[in-house]
Amino acid sequence: MPHPPGLITLLTDFGDRDAFVASMKGVILAINPQATLVDISHQVPAHSIEEAAYLLKSCYRYFPDGTVHVAVVDPGVGSARRSLIAKSERYFFLAPDNGLLTHIIADSGGIEVREIENKAYRLTSPGRTFDGRDLFAPAAAWLTKQQSFASFGRLIDDCRTFTISKPKWEAMVLVGEIVHVDRFGNLISNLTPHHVKEIQDVMKRSNVLIRIAGHKIDTLAGSYSEGTAEQPSALINSDGRLEIFVKEASAADLLKVGKGVRVEVS
Amino acid sequence: MPHPPGLITLLTDFGDRDAFVASMKGVILAINPQATLVDISHQVPAHSIEEAAYLLKSCYRYFPDGTVHVAVVDPGVGSARRSLIAKSERYFFLAPDNGLLTHIIADSGGIEVREIENKAYRLTSPGRTFDGRDLFAPAAAWLTKQQSFASFGRLIDDCRTFTISKPKWEAMVLVGEIVHVDRFGNLISNLTPHHVKEIQDVMKRSNVLIRIAGHKIDTLAGSYSEGTAEQPSALINSDGRLEIFVKEASAADLLKVGKGVRVEVS
Amino acid sequence: MPHPPGLITLLTDFGDRDAFVASMKGVILAINPQATLVDISHQVPAHSIEEAAYLLKSCYRYFPDGTVHVAVVDPGVGSARRSLIAKSERYFFLAPDNGLLTHIIADSGGIEVREIENKAYRLTSPGRTFDGRDLFAPAAAWLTKQQSFASFGRLIDDCRTFTISKPKWEAMVLVGEIVHVDRFGNLISNLTPHHVKEIQDVMKRSNVLIRIAGHKIDTLAGSYSEGTAEQPSALINSDGRLEIFVKEASAADLLKVGKGVRVEVS
Repeated sequence: MPHPPGLITLLTDFGDRDAFVASMKGVILAINPQATLVDISHQVPAHSIEEAAYLLKSCYRYFPDGTVHVAVVDPGVGSARRSLIAKSERYFFLAPDNGLLTHIIADSGGIEVREIENKAYRLTSPGRTFDGRDLFAPAAAWLTKQQSFASFGRLIDDCRTFTISKPKWEAMVLVGEIVHVDRFGNLISNLTPHHVKEIQDVMKRSNVLIRIAGHKIDTLAGSYSEGTAEQPSALINSDGRLEIFVKEASAADLLKVGKGVRVEVS
Repeated sequence: MPHPPGLITLLTDFGDRDAFVASMKGVILAINPQATLVDISHQVPAHSIEEAAYLLKSCYRYFPDGTVHVAVVDPGVGSARRSLIAKSERYFFLAPDNGLLTHIIADSGGIEVREIENKAYRLTSPGRTFDGRDLFAPAAAWLTKQQSFASFGRLIDDCRTFTISKPKWEAMVLVGEIVHVDRFGNLISNLTPHHVKEIQDVMKRSNVLIRIAGHKIDTLAGSYSEGTAEQPSALINSDGRLEIFVKEASAADLLKVGKGVRVEVS
Repeated sequence: MPHPPGLITLLTDFGDRDAFVASMKGVILAINPQATLVDISHQVPAHSIEEAAYLLKSCYRYFPDGTVHVAVVDPGVGSARRSLIAKSERYFFLAPDNGLLTHIIADSGGIEVREIENKAYRLTSPGRTFDGRDLFAPAAAWLTKQQSFASFGRLIDDCRTFTISKPKWEAMVLVGEIVHVDRFGNLISNLTPHHVKEIQDVMKRSNVLIRIAGHKIDTLAGSYSEGTAEQPSALINSDGRLEIFVKEASAADLLKVGKGVRVEVS
């Protein structure tokens, strides 16, 4: 991997009404005025580690090699929870040790994870409530200033992860769940084209039947415009996920469902 | 026009809760790490092409020559709707062929519009639901990497536009409408100083009488601070539009009106 | 202070649904294409000068020396209110003369304030309602293009400020107030570790008793994770303020209080 060119992304639950994110950016630019900053989102629901992990997974691989991804959803800030810096084949990641890197670790063979122990990378602060500004921002900035990955702290192999929900077979039905609801109200499942093909192979049919919240969907559309108005439709979305949508409307509103809802494919 | 210096603006209805916009930025920076990215807005109401067209019109001309404006409000993504790249005297524009460039085409004599056909500018993707990331972002980035305008695809002259609402005379009254409500609740009409002068010339008076939602306004203020508290006032705003406002309050809330409402000037 | 390197921050009440902020950025980049732009927040409640002043105070000092901070919450735009440019030891600030720089002036010994009078730094515009775009943005950009501070206009020493609320003694109780509610619902007071120490010295005890909205808090936590679920707790936050919080929940919601609420320490 090339040395980081100074591209740093930020993903937090800090919202846009306070100056939290701006403080992080100021700290980064004070250390590396050449850094390029990109916001992933700051509208993660407060303390929602799984949501942040989902968003990070959905976009990190579109960034150039050497990008430093900083993710801070951190209810345990100031406690004994560790701070992490990780290096995959193409990227760096900084995050609290609370599961935020779960998908990254699952995706990345040979990822190296270190605890950020080096106090030289921490700002002094009157309180212990804002590691985004006082630890993660300066650590990310120093990384783009040629500080070696090893200088941050010791390698660890026991960082925290949560269990990623996987579809399961129940008799001849594959049961997944909705793992994300996007801004359009589209319902994104943990089912993939691989699962759909598995069903088709088992059933020896090319059609699939999808059931969600009492509705049946019996074809896969190719695009949103192929959906039926005021009825749920399904397609394989741009992340390779089976997605339930309503044409030019919100499936979440129409079906009155959200994250965690069961999706059956047969 | 100078070759694009690498300034790219983004205007979408993708919101700020998902990683859609970040994915577009990652794609752009992976192709052109020197690109400068500016968000116009991502809070366009879902699928609201006219609102996006309005916002684009209100700001594009403040950017430096050669800026590449990318606008993606795209309910028809993945269908046969075409993808456009346009070149005016000073700017480039990329957008789906759904009316988003209506005001740009009306403003720009001699604009050239091409269909984006060149598959080299498209990312491969598991689904057809995200041309913002898979087509418009890489196409914009390649344009800033010295790819010629002609290389994108054939010239077309039949791109889709919607009808721009224009004030009309009804007897001795000029009737316009509210075309935008801003974040302060100000009501922005499609009437301009040109229309006001036309009225004054016809009436041979310097005063104008404005009627909206049962209220009468008989003077034009010069600034918001000249308005009357809890009463609607009017002024010519910084875009050269007749705007109805309430001093330090929301005219939309006070008058309980929004887009499309009739404004009479006499 | 080094000459400004071209880092400009923006703080406004313009929201994210309109193209106001984008217009300002376009103007800046048209004058100085090398400028780096950082948003502080655009979600200041409409016309809330004190809230903007609070946000500016909470982050400005994290930016590199020479940063130009532009703050526009401007209900008096277009009136006779003056436009200001100020230079402290480390930073520049541009804002309307309405109190927005109150905390900056209180913090910065020897700050020089000038009125922006030089018409060369103003865009011509069809209306007088948008000095953010027509005056502050170009003035900030020209400052980063080597225009001297003195060229903007005359020094003034009577700019407007509001009274900063300070804790007061009432008998043996120090009475402060909540001055900000952050996105997590944390309640941030105007009390500091200095005040807490003062109490401890007066009382000759190391414990403090905090009263807010009928609740008592008798210890200071070190971090959010040390709080008690569903009960208010207190800590010294990362800005050096006494903050009332509820562990992984909103103190503002639980206590049903907001800005201006009384906090007693004894």
